[in-house]
Amino acid sequence: MLITIAQEAPPSTRAAVLAAALKRGFPAHSMANGRGGEVIGIAGTLPIEHMELDGISRVLAIHKPFMMASLEARDRSVVMVGDVAIGGGSPVLMAGPCSIESIDDQIEIARAVRAAGANILRGGAFKPRSSPYSFQGLGLEGLKALAAAREATGLPVVTEVMEPEQVELVSEYADMLQIGSRNMANFPLLKRVGKTNVPVLLKRGFAATQEEFLMSAEYIMAGGNTSVVLCERGIRAFDAAFRFTLDLNVVPSIKELSHLPIIVDPSHGCGKRSLVARMAMAGLAAGADGLMLEVHVDPDRALSDGYQTITPAELGRIHRRGMALIEALDGFDKVDDLAPGFAAMSQLSSLDDVVLELERIA
Amino acid sequence: MLITIAQEAPPSTRAAVLAAALKRGFPAHSMANGRGGEVIGIAGTLPIEHMELDGISRVLAIHKPFMMASLEARDRSVVMVGDVAIGGGSPVLMAGPCSIESIDDQIEIARAVRAAGANILRGGAFKPRSSPYSFQGLGLEGLKALAAAREATGLPVVTEVMEPEQVELVSEYADMLQIGSRNMANFPLLKRVGKTNVPVLLKRGFAATQEEFLMSAEYIMAGGNTSVVLCERGIRAFDAAFRFTLDLNVVPSIKELSHLPIIVDPSHGCGKRSLVARMAMAGLAAGADGLMLEVHVDPDRALSDGYQTITPAELGRIHRRGMALIEALDGFDKVDDLAPGFAAMSQLSSLDDVVLELERIA
Amino acid sequence: MLITIAQEAPPSTRAAVLAAALKRGFPAHSMANGRGGEVIGIAGTLPIEHMELDGISRVLAIHKPFMMASLEARDRSVVMVGDVAIGGGSPVLMAGPCSIESIDDQIEIARAVRAAGANILRGGAFKPRSSPYSFQGLGLEGLKALAAAREATGLPVVTEVMEPEQVELVSEYADMLQIGSRNMANFPLLKRVGKTNVPVLLKRGFAATQEEFLMSAEYIMAGGNTSVVLCERGIRAFDAAFRFTLDLNVVPSIKELSHLPIIVDPSHGCGKRSLVARMAMAGLAAGADGLMLEVHVDPDRALSDGYQTITPAELGRIHRRGMALIEALDGFDKVDDLAPGFAAMSQLSSLDDVVLELERIA
Amino acid sequence: MLITIAQEAPPSTRAAVLAAALKRGFPAHSMANGRGGEVIGIAGTLPIEHMELDGISRVLAIHKPFMMASLEARDRSVVMVGDVAIGGGSPVLMAGPCSIESIDDQIEIARAVRAAGANILRGGAFKPRSSPYSFQGLGLEGLKALAAAREATGLPVVTEVMEPEQVELVSEYADMLQIGSRNMANFPLLKRVGKTNVPVLLKRGFAATQEEFLMSAEYIMAGGNTSVVLCERGIRAFDAAFRFTLDLNVVPSIKELSHLPIIVDPSHGCGKRSLVARMAMAGLAAGADGLMLEVHVDPDRALSDGYQTITPAELGRIHRRGMALIEALDGFDKVDDLAPGFAAMSQLSSLDDVVLELERIA
Repeated sequence: MLITIAQEAPPSTRAAVLAAALKRGFPAHSMANGRGGEVIGIAGTLPIEHMELDGISRVLAIHKPFMMASLEARDRSVVMVGDVAIGGGSPVLMAGPCSIESIDDQIEIARAVRAAGANILRGGAFKPRSSPYSFQGLGLEGLKALAAAREATGLPVVTEVMEPEQVELVSEYADMLQIGSRNMANFPLLKRVGKTNVPVLLKRGFAATQEEFLMSAEYIMAGGNTSVVLCERGIRAFDAAFRFTLDLNVVPSIKELSHLPIIVDPSHGCGKRSLVARMAMAGLAAGADGLMLEVHVDPDRALSDGYQTITPAELGRIHRRGMALIEALDGFDKVDDLAPGFAAMSQLSSLDDVVLELERIA
Repeated sequence: MLITIAQEAPPSTRAAVLAAALKRGFPAHSMANGRGGEVIGIAGTLPIEHMELDGISRVLAIHKPFMMASLEARDRSVVMVGDVAIGGGSPVLMAGPCSIESIDDQIEIARAVRAAGANILRGGAFKPRSSPYSFQGLGLEGLKALAAAREATGLPVVTEVMEPEQVELVSEYADMLQIGSRNMANFPLLKRVGKTNVPVLLKRGFAATQEEFLMSAEYIMAGGNTSVVLCERGIRAFDAAFRFTLDLNVVPSIKELSHLPIIVDPSHGCGKRSLVARMAMAGLAAGADGLMLEVHVDPDRALSDGYQTITPAELGRIHRRGMALIEALDGFDKVDDLAPGFAAMSQLSSLDDVVLELERIA
Repeated sequence: MLITIAQEAPPSTRAAVLAAALKRGFPAHSMANGRGGEVIGIAGTLPIEHMELDGISRVLAIHKPFMMASLEARDRSVVMVGDVAIGGGSPVLMAGPCSIESIDDQIEIARAVRAAGANILRGGAFKPRSSPYSFQGLGLEGLKALAAAREATGLPVVTEVMEPEQVELVSEYADMLQIGSRNMANFPLLKRVGKTNVPVLLKRGFAATQEEFLMSAEYIMAGGNTSVVLCERGIRAFDAAFRFTLDLNVVPSIKELSHLPIIVDPSHGCGKRSLVARMAMAGLAAGADGLMLEVHVDPDRALSDGYQTITPAELGRIHRRGMALIEALDGFDKVDDLAPGFAAMSQLSSLDDVVLELERIA
Repeated sequence: MLITIAQEAPPSTRAAVLAAALKRGFPAHSMANGRGGEVIGIAGTLPIEHMELDGISRVLAIHKPFMMASLEARDRSVVMVGDVAIGGGSPVLMAGPCSIESIDDQIEIARAVRAAGANILRGGAFKPRSSPYSFQGLGLEGLKALAAAREATGLPVVTEVMEPEQVELVSEYADMLQIGSRNMANFPLLKRVGKTNVPVLLKRGFAATQEEFLMSAEYIMAGGNTSVVLCERGIRAFDAAFRFTLDLNVVPSIKELSHLPIIVDPSHGCGKRSLVARMAMAGLAAGADGLMLEVHVDPDRALSDGYQTITPAELGRIHRRGMALIEALDGFDKVDDLAPGFAAMSQLSSLDDVVLELERIA
C-alpha cells in the first residue's frame, strides 16, 4: 500500500499511519515524493479509517510488487553522489579501470578521465573473479588509492562491495557502493547496503528479469536507503561471439515502471573494446541517465578486462559525441514526447526544467 | 578464396580466373569492389599461377566463411531500392502496416508515412502467422495494393516473400524482397531470391548468431544477387516481459565484419509500442543504416501486431529526432573515429563524402 | 470449437456440422477420437442449435489454440509408419546417417542399425547447411538410396523435406516426411505436407516455445494430415560448451497438452558423441515415445555431423539399455501413476494394454 | 600444476613440494587421489627439480582451470554426509520442504520422507526470496527444527547458507551446507564454506556455464574443503511456460570433466509439480548421483514453492521407480560402457564394485 501525504499535512497524520503499520507488524518506509510531500510504502493493508486522515492526498492499494521503486510511488528520483546529480539532467559519466592497480596509477587515470569528461571515478578494490587463483583486487589498499584519487581530482568515487561484512569498511572510502551483477540477488548484501545512507549503484544480474532487477532495488529501499541508481550491463544470450548482449530495451521500459535513474555499462555489455563507443551512444539515445565505462591508460596491460577497456582519448570522444547527441535530442523533449506513455517531464530535460515543471504542476 | 582484379586489368584475366574455377567445379561469383575494380569469390583454392595474372591486385586465401559478405571482399555496399540508397549516407526509413488491409488503406498509410519522412513503404501481403486459423494476408490482392500505393506516392515498396514458388510473383510487384525472421535459414528460399536481381531485406532469425546471419546473406550472394540489406529485429531472450530483445551489439559488430548495410526494426525488437521511438534512436546511434517501423493510422485496429505499431505522427517525431541525432553525430565522424577498428570512412558520413574519400583512396 | 460425435451418431449429424461450418466460412477438420467416434475442430463458433444434434457427445467452446493437436481433442494418437507404431507402446528407434552418402553405404548402415535394434531408417537427401558452399545432399540420388535400403532391410524410411515444391517428390520415396528444426515455422511447407497423407516427423525449432511447436503441428493437422510425431532436438542456450541443450521438460509437459507422440533426438540435442547414450536414456525415462539417432559405420568420416554421430555398436548398447529401462518402469505404470495429472493410460504401457483400456472405457 | 604423490612416497617429498610452492607464494592444496596416494594442486609452476623427487608418480603442468575439481586430479569422489555416501553407488535422495515451517511439521515431514525412501532431509531456514516483503525463513528456529528432525529420524540434514557471517551458525546444525543458485558466484561465501570441513551442496547458477559451475566448486576446494557435491537445478531459457529448464546435458558432461558427484533437482528444474517425477527419472537415467526434491505433506499449503512441491506418496513412487531404473541399467555398466569416453568405472556401479576396481587398478 502506497500512501502519499501532502506537504501541508499535520505531523500527526504521518505518525498515525506509521503507528498503524507498526501495530500490525507491517514493514513501512517513507521517502520524499519529489513534489514536496512524502510517500509511505507499507507491506500490508491498513483499514479504511487511516485513509481518511487529514493531509493524505493519495492512497494506492494496488501497485507493483516493487512498491517503493515504482513510478507510482513518486516523481523521478535524482540521486546525489557527492555534488553530482544522477537522473533528471545531464548524463553522468562514470569511468576508470576495472581493477585499481596502485595509488599512482589510480590518480593518473582519475586525472585523465576527468579531463575527458568523466564526473565520477570508478575502480575495483574487491574483485569478483571466476577463478580463485586470479588477482582478487588490492582490497583496503585499493580503497585508499581510490580516496587518494578523489583527493587529487575532486571526483566522487564508486567501488564494488561484495559481502555484508565489507559494507562498513567500503562506506568509509566510497561515495557510492556498487553491487555487481553476480550479487544482484545477494539479498543479505542488499539488506546491508539498504541500512547505510550511501548511494548504491545496482547492476542488473546478467540473467535477471526486469522485475527481479526492480525487486532487488526494492530490497535496498525497504531498508531505508532510497538513493539507488540502476545499471544495465548486458545479459547472457546465445551467441558465443559476444560475452554479453547489452539489453537497451530495459532502459525505456524501466523508465515506464520506476522513478529510479538508470545508466548503461557498454564495457561489460559488449565485452569488446571496439563496440563500446557506438553502444555508449545507443545507451544515451535509449534514454539512459548516464554511462559507466572501463578506462585504462594502457588497456592491453590492465590487470583485468583489458579486452573491453578503452583509453582516455576514446572516452573523450564518447563524451563529446554523447553531449552533442543529448543536446540534439533535448530540444525535442520540450515540444513533443518521444514515447507516448511517458510523463510529460522527460528524463532528458535539464534539472532547471524539472524544477519549473514541478512548480507548474504543483 | 577472394581475388581482386583492378579496373585496368585486361579482360583475359577475369576470364582466366573464372575458367580455372569452372574447370575445378568451384562455385565462383563476382561483384564490384566499390573502388572501380571487381572481386571474385571462389569456393575453393586455385593454383598459384592464376594468382600472378596481369591486373590481379589482391589475393586472399584465408577469409571468413561468409566470403562475399565479408568486409574483406569490398568497400561498404550501397544498395539501391528504386532511387533510394541504403548504406552510405542518410539513413533509410521503411514504414507501413504489418499487414496490408486494402488498396485504399494502403494508399492512405503510404501518403501518411511519406509525409512523416519515410522513403520506403512496407506492408505484408503474405503473412507468416503462428496460427493456421489467423488472417494469412491478402496475397495477390495485397501485392496490387502495394503497387497502387507506390503509384500514388512514388515510394518504392518492400514486402515479404515466404516460399520459393512465390518469388517470381512477388518480384513483379515489389522493389525489395523481405526474408522474414522465421525464414532466415530457409535455404531454398534464399537460393531462389539469390537468382533474382531484386534487392533483398534479410531479417535476422530471432535465435541466429551473427555468423549464421551473415552466412544466410552469403547464400543470397552466392546465387549472384549482391544487393542485400541486413535487418536486426530482436532476439529471443529470457524475460517474458519482452516479446523480443533488440540486440544492438550486432550493429557495430557487423560493421566490422561485413560491407553490407544493416538496419534495425524496433517494432519487432521491442514488441511494445511505447518503447519503439527510444529504441529507434538507439538503433541509429549504434550506427544502423536505417530503420524499419510498423505504422498504422489506427494501431489498435490493425489486423496484426497492433501492440507494437505506432501512428504516422509518432513516425514523424522519430524522423525529426533521428535526423537531428544523425546530424549531431555526423560532424564527429569527419574528425575522429568512434570505434577504433573502423575504416576511416564511417557509415554515417554522407554519400558525397564517400565519393570524395573513394577518389582520394583510388 | 471442438465437437465430438459418437460412433452411433447418424451420418446426418456429421454432415450438418460440417455444412454449418462451411456456410460461415470456418475451416473445419475431423479425425478419429481414438474411442470409436470422431472429433471435428472448427475455427469458429457455431450457434447453439448445432450443438444439440443427435449423437453429439461433447462440445468444447474453450480450448487450446492448437485445437486439433490438444489432448482435449482425442485420446493419445498412435502414428503408423509402415508397420511401425509410434506412441502407445514400445519406443520407436529411428537411426541412420546425417547425410546419405551412397546406395551401398546406405544399405550397409541400414543393415547395421536394424541389427542393432532400429525399426525406422533415417538419412538426409536434401540437407539444410549453414554454408552455401557445403555439401547440400545427394538429392534424388539420395532418395533412391533410401528406397534401396528399405528394399534391402524392410525398414520404413524417414527423410527431410525442405521446400513445398519437393514434397511430392520426397513423398514418392519416403514413409515419413521430416520437417527440420529450421523449418518448424516454414508455414507454406507445413501446409503442403498437411495436404499429403504421409506421416510427418516435426522437429522443434531450436528457439521455439512449446506452444509454437504445437501450433506448427496444428498447421499440418489443419491441412487434414493428422499423422504427426513431434521431436525434441535441443534448444539454443547460453553455454558455448554445448551446441544445443536437450530440453526434456517438454516431454512430460507436451504429454499433458497434446495427444501426439513425441520422440527425442539426443544427437542434435547434445551435439557431442560421448553424451548421446546417457541422454537417450534420459529421454526415454522422461517418457518419450522413441529416439532418433545419427549413426554411421565410421563417424569420423561422415560427410556431416560426425562429432555427434555414434556407431552401430553404440546404438546396440543404447537399444539394450533402453529396453531394460522401459521394462523396469513399465510395471509401475500399471499400478501407480508417475505424474499426478496424467491420464490413467500411460504412454509407456504396451499397445495391448491400450486396447484393453480403450475397451474398458468405451 | 597437479602433482600426484604415491602412497609409498617419503613424507619429505610432500613437505618439499609444499615448501617450494609456499616459497614462491603459490596457493597449494592437497587431497587424497582416491587410489591411496595424494594429489597436490598448485596455482603456479614449480621448477623441474621438484618434479623429480622420490615418490612423485605424475605431474600435470597443463590442466583445466578447475584444477582440483577436474577428473585429471583424482578418481571419482565419494562425499560422506553423516553415514550417507554420495557418488559412487546407490543414488542419494534428499527431500523435504522448501521452507521449514515449525519443529513439529519438520519432524512429521522427516518421518514421511524417510519412509518414502529419502536418506537426507532438506529444509530452508534462511530463504533467498525475490521480495523483501515475503517470508524470509524461520532462521535460527528453523535450524533447531532441522536438528530436532534429525534427532527424531536419524536423517542427516542439508540447509542453505546465504552469507559468510552465517556459516559458523549453520555449520553447528547442518550436516551439509547448501549454496543456492543465486549464490553460486558469491565468492566470499564460497571461500568461507571452503574453510569449514562440512560437506557442501553447490547448486548451479541458473545462467552459469558448466565451466563457471566447476570454477565455483574450485573456490570451495581451494579453501581446503574437498567435500563438494554439485547440483543441476534448471537454467533460465526463453519459454515462459517453464520457470526453469532442467539441463541434463551437464550431467554426463560434468562426469567427463570432474570427479565430483552431481545430483539433480527436478523440483526447481521444472517448476511444476506434475513434471517432477518424470524428470527425476530422466535425471537418474542421465547418470546423476542422486536427486533433491521439494516435498510437503500438503503442497498447496506450503509457505513457499508449493506449485513445484510433491507429496511423500509421490516421493515414494519416485523412489521405487528410481531404484528399479538404476537396477535395470546397472547390470549393463559391468559389461559395456554407455559413453565411449567414460572411465571403466561407471558412476552407476555399486560401492563394492568401486572398491574391487580400485584394488585391481592399484
